[in-house]
Amino acid sequence: MKLKVGVIGTGNWGTTLGLLVANNVKRPNVSKYFEEKVTLWGIEEYHSNELLSTIINLEHVNKKYLSGIRLPENLFCTSEISICADLDIIIVAMPHQFIKKIEDFKGIIKRNCILISVVKGFIDNPDKSITLISTYLKNTFKCKVCVLMGANIATEVAKGSVCEGTLGYEDEESKELSYLLLNSYNYRVTCVKDIPGVELVGSLKNIVALGCGLVEGLGYTGNTKVAIMRNGLMEIRKFLKYFYAESKDETIFQSCGIADLVVSCLEGRNYKYGIMKGKEDTSLEDFEKSMGGQKIQGTGTAEDIFNFLEYKNRTKDFPLFRTIYSIFIENSDPSEILRCISTDSLSDMYK
Amino acid sequence: MKLKVGVIGTGNWGTTLGLLVANNVKRPNVSKYFEEKVTLWGIEEYHSNELLSTIINLEHVNKKYLSGIRLPENLFCTSEISICADLDIIIVAMPHQFIKKIEDFKGIIKRNCILISVVKGFIDNPDKSITLISTYLKNTFKCKVCVLMGANIATEVAKGSVCEGTLGYEDEESKELSYLLLNSYNYRVTCVKDIPGVELVGSLKNIVALGCGLVEGLGYTGNTKVAIMRNGLMEIRKFLKYFYAESKDETIFQSCGIADLVVSCLEGRNYKYGIMKGKEDTSLEDFEKSMGGQKIQGTGTAEDIFNFLEYKNRTKDFPLFRTIYSIFIENSDPSEILRCISTDSLSDMYK
Repeated sequence: MKLKVGVIGTGNWGTTLGLLVANNVKRPNVSKYFEEKVTLWGIEEYHSNELLSTIINLEHVNKKYLSGIRLPENLFCTSEISICADLDIIIVAMPHQFIKKIEDFKGIIKRNCILISVVKGFIDNPDKSITLISTYLKNTFKCKVCVLMGANIATEVAKGSVCEGTLGYEDEESKELSYLLLNSYNYRVTCVKDIPGVELVGSLKNIVALGCGLVEGLGYTGNTKVAIMRNGLMEIRKFLKYFYAESKDETIFQSCGIADLVVSCLEGRNYKYGIMKGKEDTSLEDFEKSMGGQKIQGTGTAEDIFNFLEYKNRTKDFPLFRTIYSIFIENSDPSEILRCISTDSLSDMYK
Repeated sequence: MKLKVGVIGTGNWGTTLGLLVANNVKRPNVSKYFEEKVTLWGIEEYHSNELLSTIINLEHVNKKYLSGIRLPENLFCTSEISICADLDIIIVAMPHQFIKKIEDFKGIIKRNCILISVVKGFIDNPDKSITLISTYLKNTFKCKVCVLMGANIATEVAKGSVCEGTLGYEDEESKELSYLLLNSYNYRVTCVKDIPGVELVGSLKNIVALGCGLVEGLGYTGNTKVAIMRNGLMEIRKFLKYFYAESKDETIFQSCGIADLVVSCLEGRNYKYGIMKGKEDTSLEDFEKSMGGQKIQGTGTAEDIFNFLEYKNRTKDFPLFRTIYSIFIENSDPSEILRCISTDSLSDMYK
């Protein structure tokens, strides 16, 4: 029997993944495994007085979050939760801010369903510890979970640009099905048996992207920006090493690692907010409004990570993360970030 | 006795390093170790009918290779080789193409002099093997050699942008003196006891930068460009692992590694040539003319490395290096480069 596929989340990335998968399941070698109809689930919302799901189903375009891109006709949008009871593989692409709304699907999503999370960020617990989204989904639904991260500016992926993604997996079956569903000539998937590594670098890089935008907003150029990227990457590695020792250092070299870091620091939304903050001290609220309501993850991640580091008594080992937190959350002087470019980071970690 | 410092090479980067060092030796804690006068040696050449050295000494600007930047008055330019007999530390910043002209200094440069090479590229031997420039300098002059590489777009460094550099060293004395001479608030030096690693990543990234420019010239966007960068980095690591096993994988994380790779792939000359090649199939000669005679290293490096890989019977393990060679040297179809973005590079190297 063919598997039924769906995406939860009609945002920029969710819609793009719906498009990617809906095109993919029509390919000769893939169509024998999956049903042609792909479900795109979104909360009921309006665009110019029309239901977004209606626009997507009738006009085949997501005018609110992915305007100008034609969606395949086998991508069907709904806000009806019960439809998800049928699905065998679900890509979870909700914005991090609303992730707990996924609990509405409790008792609906099948136990043997495979969830592929593309959500960046963490669950911040009352005791200041953090829980990976993959762990949270696993605990909530007791089903198999993979994560998908990579250097994937959504609009470029939607336009069919050649790029890579990294799938973090735990068991062979969910790896093989997810790979089959996602991999294509334009979107090339590498599989890594390291869920925490893939998920963490994908989330932490948003903090670095804020910093990278900030130095650009302050008027600094390429040399300085890549110094921030590099120091950020060193802190990401250190974070994995300290707190998720089971993750693999090699994961850093995948698309979810350095590649995603670089593209996010050059084009991503967090980077763009960093520029606005460096130039004109723009508030997060105003920035998100200017992006048509699209959310950014970096500031929330910076806060979660700072709280976590405080809880672990380790803030001093992460000067860049700490400084970005203090600039973006506590409004300290943006130029403080230049102090974080280390003079001898190698000796710091590997002497 | 204070040490005498000089730079060989009046190009873009040589002049910038002359400026950096000439400013540095005036600082309170540094001036006690070095003479204030810094020598900048260049071949006799003309700019608008005037000797370049005369322009530099009288007008304090290198109108040919670093126009618009005011040079410090303690930077003294000469084309007189004998003056270099006095120097205790010499930064070697000749363009790679002319490196063998350094043999004119044989018998002039002191035996206990410290040479700091910033030259990217290799000596290609008749048997198709390669020799590192640092090894060549060591063999030629029998003196101590360090290498300095990093994410350093010359003009930005000259303007005082905050950035990092990596010093590869072999012995403590030359490390300490070089660090003292070069490190400052704006130019932050990390020292790594790994000369081949620092030198190799600094050279090999020029091949990747050509490829990155090429995909941009062909009309591809950020996701694709960072996929080329990432795959290039994987091949650089593999090259070090196969042929220079004494180098350290950690060096990749220094400024000379990922950071230099990224900035070179975004702004460097090789990247710019890649764009022109992808867009209009511009010849190397025409490109260098359009850059006012500035040389690029990437094509020569691509050729040296391809020959070396052939000699080692290893071309098949380096699809990106091989393809960039065949596009830039043998004029094969530029779109071939897209095949080099791997679908499973992790399994390739680390399964």
